[in-house]
Amino acid sequence: MSTWRESFAELDAHGIERLEQASAEALASLRRPAGPRSALTPTQLHELIGANEICPEKGSSLSEVLNEFASSVWANSVVPFDPSCVAHLHPPALLPSVVTEMTVALMNQSMDSWDQSPAATEVELHLMKWLSHLMGMPTSGSGVMTSGGTASNLLGITLARSWAASTIGVDVLQMGLPPEAKTWRVLCSDQAHFSVQRATAQLGLGRDAVVTVPTDPRGVMDLAELDATIAQVQAQGQRIIALVGTAGTTDLGAVDALDAIASRAEEIGAWFHVDAAVAGSYLLSGTLAPMLDGIARADSVTVDFHKLWFQPFNASALVVKDVDRFDLLRVKSKYLDRGDEVEGMINLVGRSLDTSRRFDAAKIVITLRTLGREAFAEMIDRVVALSALAARGIAKADELELVTWPTGPMCVFDAPGHSADDLRRVQQNLLLRGEMVLGRTEIKGRAALKFTFMNPLVTDQDVERLVTMVISELHSLSVES
Amino acid sequence: MSTWRESFAELDAHGIERLEQASAEALASLRRPAGPRSALTPTQLHELIGANEICPEKGSSLSEVLNEFASSVWANSVVPFDPSCVAHLHPPALLPSVVTEMTVALMNQSMDSWDQSPAATEVELHLMKWLSHLMGMPTSGSGVMTSGGTASNLLGITLARSWAASTIGVDVLQMGLPPEAKTWRVLCSDQAHFSVQRATAQLGLGRDAVVTVPTDPRGVMDLAELDATIAQVQAQGQRIIALVGTAGTTDLGAVDALDAIASRAEEIGAWFHVDAAVAGSYLLSGTLAPMLDGIARADSVTVDFHKLWFQPFNASALVVKDVDRFDLLRVKSKYLDRGDEVEGMINLVGRSLDTSRRFDAAKIVITLRTLGREAFAEMIDRVVALSALAARGIAKADELELVTWPTGPMCVFDAPGHSADDLRRVQQNLLLRGEMVLGRTEIKGRAALKFTFMNPLVTDQDVERLVTMVISELHSLSVES
Repeated sequence: MSTWRESFAELDAHGIERLEQASAEALASLRRPAGPRSALTPTQLHELIGANEICPEKGSSLSEVLNEFASSVWANSVVPFDPSCVAHLHPPALLPSVVTEMTVALMNQSMDSWDQSPAATEVELHLMKWLSHLMGMPTSGSGVMTSGGTASNLLGITLARSWAASTIGVDVLQMGLPPEAKTWRVLCSDQAHFSVQRATAQLGLGRDAVVTVPTDPRGVMDLAELDATIAQVQAQGQRIIALVGTAGTTDLGAVDALDAIASRAEEIGAWFHVDAAVAGSYLLSGTLAPMLDGIARADSVTVDFHKLWFQPFNASALVVKDVDRFDLLRVKSKYLDRGDEVEGMINLVGRSLDTSRRFDAAKIVITLRTLGREAFAEMIDRVVALSALAARGIAKADELELVTWPTGPMCVFDAPGHSADDLRRVQQNLLLRGEMVLGRTEIKGRAALKFTFMNPLVTDQDVERLVTMVISELHSLSVES
Repeated sequence: MSTWRESFAELDAHGIERLEQASAEALASLRRPAGPRSALTPTQLHELIGANEICPEKGSSLSEVLNEFASSVWANSVVPFDPSCVAHLHPPALLPSVVTEMTVALMNQSMDSWDQSPAATEVELHLMKWLSHLMGMPTSGSGVMTSGGTASNLLGITLARSWAASTIGVDVLQMGLPPEAKTWRVLCSDQAHFSVQRATAQLGLGRDAVVTVPTDPRGVMDLAELDATIAQVQAQGQRIIALVGTAGTTDLGAVDALDAIASRAEEIGAWFHVDAAVAGSYLLSGTLAPMLDGIARADSVTVDFHKLWFQPFNASALVVKDVDRFDLLRVKSKYLDRGDEVEGMINLVGRSLDTSRRFDAAKIVITLRTLGREAFAEMIDRVVALSALAARGIAKADELELVTWPTGPMCVFDAPGHSADDLRRVQQNLLLRGEMVLGRTEIKGRAALKFTFMNPLVTDQDVERLVTMVISELHSLSVES
């Protein structure tokens, strides 16, 4: 690429030809390690990547750059579609979404204002409407796309804060937190995602404003404990501004009893937010959807398309039962949302904590239309079946013990007689040798290992092999020490 | 695509072949309107897009879906690479970044933890190090990628808030805002981006915590006014926790005197944040870089790669002079950042307000290496020259009047004798007829129109034509009324 004049995209025949050639080169350049990652250490990677200049005075050909990048970066990346990549809620991406990302970049719509994304705005709104309908919400349901589950939870709890303030006549976005805010509390389970605490920290309430409710051994919020916690918090003169239910905890995949929590929220006049980042797609599965009963009653719901909808990052949504609730957030911008547009010209900046924002809805819509609901149901059922299969293998193995029987795509276990440091060594040895990207966590103070199955193409034999690999690694620790 | 089993990406020969075919189909399907957008109204678009089912029970072939999407969505999108698309800081994307987005989606690294992005973590760190060095910061400089300028400004001001709290022994993220926070103020110019207010609103300080400093006619913060404002705020017993300098205001492209503001910040012990979302890339241009003198002294700086670095959304960065400042943010996660990793294994979740996060650094690095610094300097100089050219045309036209002489890629003007509503009609008529995507804003209460030149391929003749089109549209208003 000798000159920048040829480096901009255009959609005439010549432009498309250049794009086709460049995309073929980009694909041809890709390198993947033999396993889920290469065996380079952090220090080796630091040296390898650091050796390349970020911005030379003069450029090089795109092929040359792509090839160098492929050798140093892609060859040393983790491979989410490798059967031994089982640490996180980190999916392999479906092909329709992958190629759509290229067209999204090329057309580069920005979702903040209608005049930067006229059709894209309608696509996002249509998708949000469909999603709220899928949840069983009334026709007032809508939503907005965000960059991730953390951002969606933040937006949901931001709305809850504004709403709580509005009930005492305070415009919190304008005036800041009133003194009463010192008594505001957000309740969630002790297995809820740490982004609930991050949200209250960000919002000036502090992580201390989150009161966690104990869970049962499966990781599900204990409803008797919820009632006790509500009573206790209220007895202390504190105000519960929001109850957060989790539909799919990060470690155990546990789904709280949403319908029961919804009733409590109604009784005490609290905002009901559901974090369905993990389990939102269960709505597509006939067998799994009933676990989410009550989600229709939520004021706001987080759904991550970049988890069990097999979309590349970033693709999350915050759905609200009543679109007017976004008025709690409304910011006027002199250049983006002037309030004097023609009928139907919606500027999404008013619903979002972001300003410019990419058209992430495109890849989701194209993937859903290409695969259809039934295929999604099969894929989701399959990853949940994989973790049940792993659980059976673990239950049979003398060396391992399940923390709980899984209900979602993740399976958590430890190794009786082994220390937390042993588990750390198992996970890090497998990672550093490039053999398995295994999860490691802590459940109520108990160190544990974790498989997270995000790839429906993983076979029963793969699962057996993964369990065997963990056992062998435990054995080699004993030999080492 | 009849079955989901063939819908996941894989990098063997068969997988690459399927990806090549699908990407060629995706490109072939693209449709662009003749001008900067089609002439469909919001209502027509709503009906057109709403007619398609989001998720049918069974899927269709990818080609079919892509073609339908192209006809309804891409054909009715705005075209950032059209010479008449001049409303916003909304660039055409460079080809290397466009094709890289596909590989980023395919490899789907997540930037929150090293075991989801080992090489990608090093690439992002290397890019941030380079950027802080380009700003003249010490070797302690670093940064993190965010989803946009609004998020980067929020992160910068979040750090400022934590730092201010720490000076009085308060861990604000844990405990929430102390009573003293009622007196905390953030100063920025009256032309600063509205995301400064959004940040303080989000952080619980309220928009009221922002005190704006008057600007001179060019839109640059008036330093005498800054001194007066500082004195006044302090006399009221309020504490200035941060000074925000703007390097490139949204409307006028004005660059504040960063070095002078840095000195004030030092004197009063305030955090110095620079919003260089717009003008950050001036650092690559020999002629424009001196405008940013003093940026090296900032505690934190926002840079948007998806503006004058010609990258697709999202691609922003928050740079800090001292990487240890990220400790102000640090959150431990039991499953992501356990604090017991091996040497050099960095989990970026501790620097970010996000958790899962896409590998946006890839496209930037590949583009910089392919084009080189000199090409970037030429492109940036060119868009600034285009707005100067437009300004000369406007200055010569009896019907139009410059609000100020431009120094950046945008040129703001009004039409003497015409009302704000006339300007609205000019902008909306051109937009709705699909002839020009023109900017419209308000500068200190004065309604105005705006050209923003983001495409260095725009010709001198294009600029003349755009000015002429605005004048004709003004004339037709007079005929209409």
